[in-house]
Amino acid sequence: MTRLNRQWRLARRPTGDIGPADLELVEAPVPALAAGEVLVRNVYLSLDPTNRIWMSDMDQYLPPVEIGAVMRGGTLGVVEESKDPEIPVGAVVLTGLAGWQDYEICAPGVARVVPQLPGLPLTAYMSVLGATGLTAYFGLLDIGQPKPGETVVVSAAAGAVGSIVGQIAKIKGARVVGIVGSAAKADWITRDLGFDAAINYKTEDVGAALDRHCPNGIDVNFENVGGAIMDAVMARMNNFSRMALCGMISTYNAEGPVPGPTNFTSILMHRIKVQGFIVIDYLPRAAEAMSDLIPWVATGQLKYKVHVEKGLETAPQAVKRLFTGDHDGKLLVEVSAPPGAAA
Amino acid sequence: MTRLNRQWRLARRPTGDIGPADLELVEAPVPALAAGEVLVRNVYLSLDPTNRIWMSDMDQYLPPVEIGAVMRGGTLGVVEESKDPEIPVGAVVLTGLAGWQDYEICAPGVARVVPQLPGLPLTAYMSVLGATGLTAYFGLLDIGQPKPGETVVVSAAAGAVGSIVGQIAKIKGARVVGIVGSAAKADWITRDLGFDAAINYKTEDVGAALDRHCPNGIDVNFENVGGAIMDAVMARMNNFSRMALCGMISTYNAEGPVPGPTNFTSILMHRIKVQGFIVIDYLPRAAEAMSDLIPWVATGQLKYKVHVEKGLETAPQAVKRLFTGDHDGKLLVEVSAPPGAAA
Repeated sequence: MTRLNRQWRLARRPTGDIGPADLELVEAPVPALAAGEVLVRNVYLSLDPTNRIWMSDMDQYLPPVEIGAVMRGGTLGVVEESKDPEIPVGAVVLTGLAGWQDYEICAPGVARVVPQLPGLPLTAYMSVLGATGLTAYFGLLDIGQPKPGETVVVSAAAGAVGSIVGQIAKIKGARVVGIVGSAAKADWITRDLGFDAAINYKTEDVGAALDRHCPNGIDVNFENVGGAIMDAVMARMNNFSRMALCGMISTYNAEGPVPGPTNFTSILMHRIKVQGFIVIDYLPRAAEAMSDLIPWVATGQLKYKVHVEKGLETAPQAVKRLFTGDHDGKLLVEVSAPPGAAA
Repeated sequence: MTRLNRQWRLARRPTGDIGPADLELVEAPVPALAAGEVLVRNVYLSLDPTNRIWMSDMDQYLPPVEIGAVMRGGTLGVVEESKDPEIPVGAVVLTGLAGWQDYEICAPGVARVVPQLPGLPLTAYMSVLGATGLTAYFGLLDIGQPKPGETVVVSAAAGAVGSIVGQIAKIKGARVVGIVGSAAKADWITRDLGFDAAINYKTEDVGAALDRHCPNGIDVNFENVGGAIMDAVMARMNNFSRMALCGMISTYNAEGPVPGPTNFTSILMHRIKVQGFIVIDYLPRAAEAMSDLIPWVATGQLKYKVHVEKGLETAPQAVKRLFTGDHDGKLLVEVSAPPGAAA
């Protein structure tokens, strides 16, 4: 039986917002397996702001997705065929960056069996216990290094990473102020997640609100958005403060060069450390993070939300929610039905 | 006898370049000493890019100099009268930031006797063994952390700090490329100071020259100037590279907000650490630097140049040389005659 594999391929590089002609859905037969390979049916596809970077040819941390290639993306799936004696059919595996497609053939050593924990849905491994959780954990603790009583600000605070960052900062004893784009998100992060304050950038003057909520200045900025919001935060950073630069989503759809922060000299005057990071650099230290994250999730100290869109065909529309903010927490596409008994 | 003290006082905040009406020379009597105080005749006055910052009311690391106050500046002088039993008349002392004036009365504990070493002129304590040397040493080694074989770029490389930075980087085994503003400076840093290459930003395309001289990219940027030169360097920084932000002299005369680097996203994509620093933070660790700097200077491994302008009255004109580049190495004003036998 020849399986057909639907694939979203990059047809051209987007100009501004991702448009309908930028990605193309094609069908290709799944080839036969070679020794050591496994065939994975993708169940969840992770949608992330960095997808927009990969679609572009800007200077970036991985090669851009080539025109005509399958769009890159993190996936979790179920093994349907296996020529690897250590990975049985039916195993739930993470496959790295298998991409926007129904199936993937994993080369030997690529698929890693998910160590499923009782009571946790598979979506946890695509969010708080996946790259999202590692991003939040290492960016905040390795670069931000909040001390008890310090003030941490996080932008895109109801997003996949931001919502985890704020909760970890609270666990570590910091005051946490989140910047979000709706009243509902503000409610969620303050009432359910324990943030000390939320600022709705769509209805409030961010600078004035930061002055109100950060009377002692800002010690750590976990930066997800860039642009005017980052400028407002930087203007209020304390001497010897730290900025973990995780993303600049407000700039990814821009055409041409984006002006840097107008208060770049603050870095000098206030001896700020600004450090960029990419989660792939921390994968060798994943176990270190998991030893904290798993018990925090298990005890309910660390909450997470996923927003699941159904069907591979929805991916190009769904990814745009990252830029409009029309989701809470981690954005996933359910590519195919998850296995019946996930726990 | 009542001494008259000439003082340069800040008359108004400069707009753009420092102008003739921004500082005012006045004479004031020197008051009598109280117990524990010492009267110091200033011999050398340090002129530094940060003087322009202090004249402005921009957000900065010390309070701006108040209108009507004596202009702030680092000084070295000779004790003329003493009511501190531990500091004899005739002692050569550093007085912190005594300012642009002939005399200063130091409160108890402020004057520190200079531990003069044989063969070293007093100007050494106002340059390579003063704040300048500490700036270069800690900015490069504490923040830049060059490893043997790595490529270090330093801007304003024939300046007081830059010329020391490059030599320390060479001592530590790095490849060093300096950016300067004249052919004579390029010659000096490559022929006399041992830089591997020099780029004359006034006659060369800095980006193209960096490509040529840094075939393996840039691992450490010691940033003194900001603006377009910083942008060109940032565009070529390697993954996990470090940028010690020491100064942004190209922006200090600007009116209104200065746009940040156009390639700020490089910090993210290449996981760059950008860290600002101010030498005053490192004063408690001065001995650590001196234990390296003194032998390096004594053995001739570390060379330095001073440019001395004579007479306190020249200070407002002399300070402008920092912005035109019309000097090599450390810029000083000789306020009064140095003691006959300095060694």
